[in-house]
Amino acid sequence: MENEQKKIATYTFDLEPAEGNAQQEIPLTLLAKRILETATYHAENWGVGYSTLIKKNHAWVLARLAIEMTSYPGIYDKYTVETWIEGYNKHFSARNFCFSNPNGKIFGYARSIWSVIDIQSRTSVDITTFRHIENNVSDKECPIAPQSKIKPVKDENPSIYPVRYSDIDINRHVNSVKYIEHMLDNFPMETYDKQMIRRFEINYINEARYGCNLNFYREQLSESNYTMEIRNENGEPVCRGKIIFTERK
Amino acid sequence: MENEQKKIATYTFDLEPAEGNAQQEIPLTLLAKRILETATYHAENWGVGYSTLIKKNHAWVLARLAIEMTSYPGIYDKYTVETWIEGYNKHFSARNFCFSNPNGKIFGYARSIWSVIDIQSRTSVDITTFRHIENNVSDKECPIAPQSKIKPVKDENPSIYPVRYSDIDINRHVNSVKYIEHMLDNFPMETYDKQMIRRFEINYINEARYGCNLNFYREQLSESNYTMEIRNENGEPVCRGKIIFTERK
Repeated sequence: MENEQKKIATYTFDLEPAEGNAQQEIPLTLLAKRILETATYHAENWGVGYSTLIKKNHAWVLARLAIEMTSYPGIYDKYTVETWIEGYNKHFSARNFCFSNPNGKIFGYARSIWSVIDIQSRTSVDITTFRHIENNVSDKECPIAPQSKIKPVKDENPSIYPVRYSDIDINRHVNSVKYIEHMLDNFPMETYDKQMIRRFEINYINEARYGCNLNFYREQLSESNYTMEIRNENGEPVCRGKIIFTERK
Repeated sequence: MENEQKKIATYTFDLEPAEGNAQQEIPLTLLAKRILETATYHAENWGVGYSTLIKKNHAWVLARLAIEMTSYPGIYDKYTVETWIEGYNKHFSARNFCFSNPNGKIFGYARSIWSVIDIQSRTSVDITTFRHIENNVSDKECPIAPQSKIKPVKDENPSIYPVRYSDIDINRHVNSVKYIEHMLDNFPMETYDKQMIRRFEINYINEARYGCNLNFYREQLSESNYTMEIRNENGEPVCRGKIIFTERK
């Protein structure tokens, strides 16, 4: 039991009024921040967190994220984030998340894929060598589809966004959550008033730095299904996203 | 003693790696978020918080904020936010903040001025009628200069910013912290690498909504001293800010 508790870490939060979006719900960006935060807390718990890895110049890098929600916490709602490792190999670790309220109502789930890199050489570090990792895999169910590899996006009229001071994180790259924020800002308020985000996916491909002009591409695949791509000035993909909306009830 | 503890509320946070800025410190925007958050918690504590006021269609509105820092918490630093009411009258309440580490080292202070409005009529609600308010005033020292009334800014070449989905809060106005983020983004990364923000002030004057094109004005008053103004499409001021930089040691 004690072992199982360590495998699945549980963190509870309140949605403060100042944190809510125009629809009086948790913004997807805050949910993504909670995903990064709880992943970090849990990794710290068993000695493979940022503070340990940074001593060897290693760091966790988020490669893919998929979030699928049936509803979102509202203002003053308590929400619980459970996180656990589904599996790992030399290059990647798969970490899942479940979002629920204190009565056990499930808001949704998330899947994430991480690698560990050497910050100097930018090469991959072998995750299978991490102490305890073999004992920290849980078979808890995550009933949402796996992440997909998002295809290049066709769009003749990209919008240009110059990377700003507030976009940059401690590694001097654009913050993972800021890409999500900018992708969501490609849709008008009307979309969010009428529809909710049922599923959001992002593939992180290359890093962007301060001073870079990013190009935003968007393609509508079907009525409520869009892909997005952010490219750097050399035309290289920085990240690709996918968003599926559903009508609000 | 118990009474004094209630007058001064204390909240402790950790700066997570994912929250840090390019200078490996707490971003001023996160500090502002902590100010709003702890003010809300403290007001809730004695029954004048968002959840109570909203039942009467009333809400706290931040009018002015001044933050003055001698240093900033770094990654994994614990920081404590103390908050207390300095005074109040019919129209305004003055709430102060002290930021320190667990060893008692002071990072800085903040001053804020709040009003309460009726959301429908947009008129001011008499704060002196609030239960307990007279017992919740503390004479704890806040050794930074009071907020100033920031003058209109002279700038012939404003930059235009269309308000986006992620700027909007639960009241369907631009989020108070987002104005700060956009003001800070008016300075290049080089400024933040060489200098730190010693003092930041903001006066909130009019609300901006989704769909509005905001104009950003900036004026350099002396070497490290700038004022900024955001105006709406009708030329009316939305907010004005002041920033004083100091060389990093």
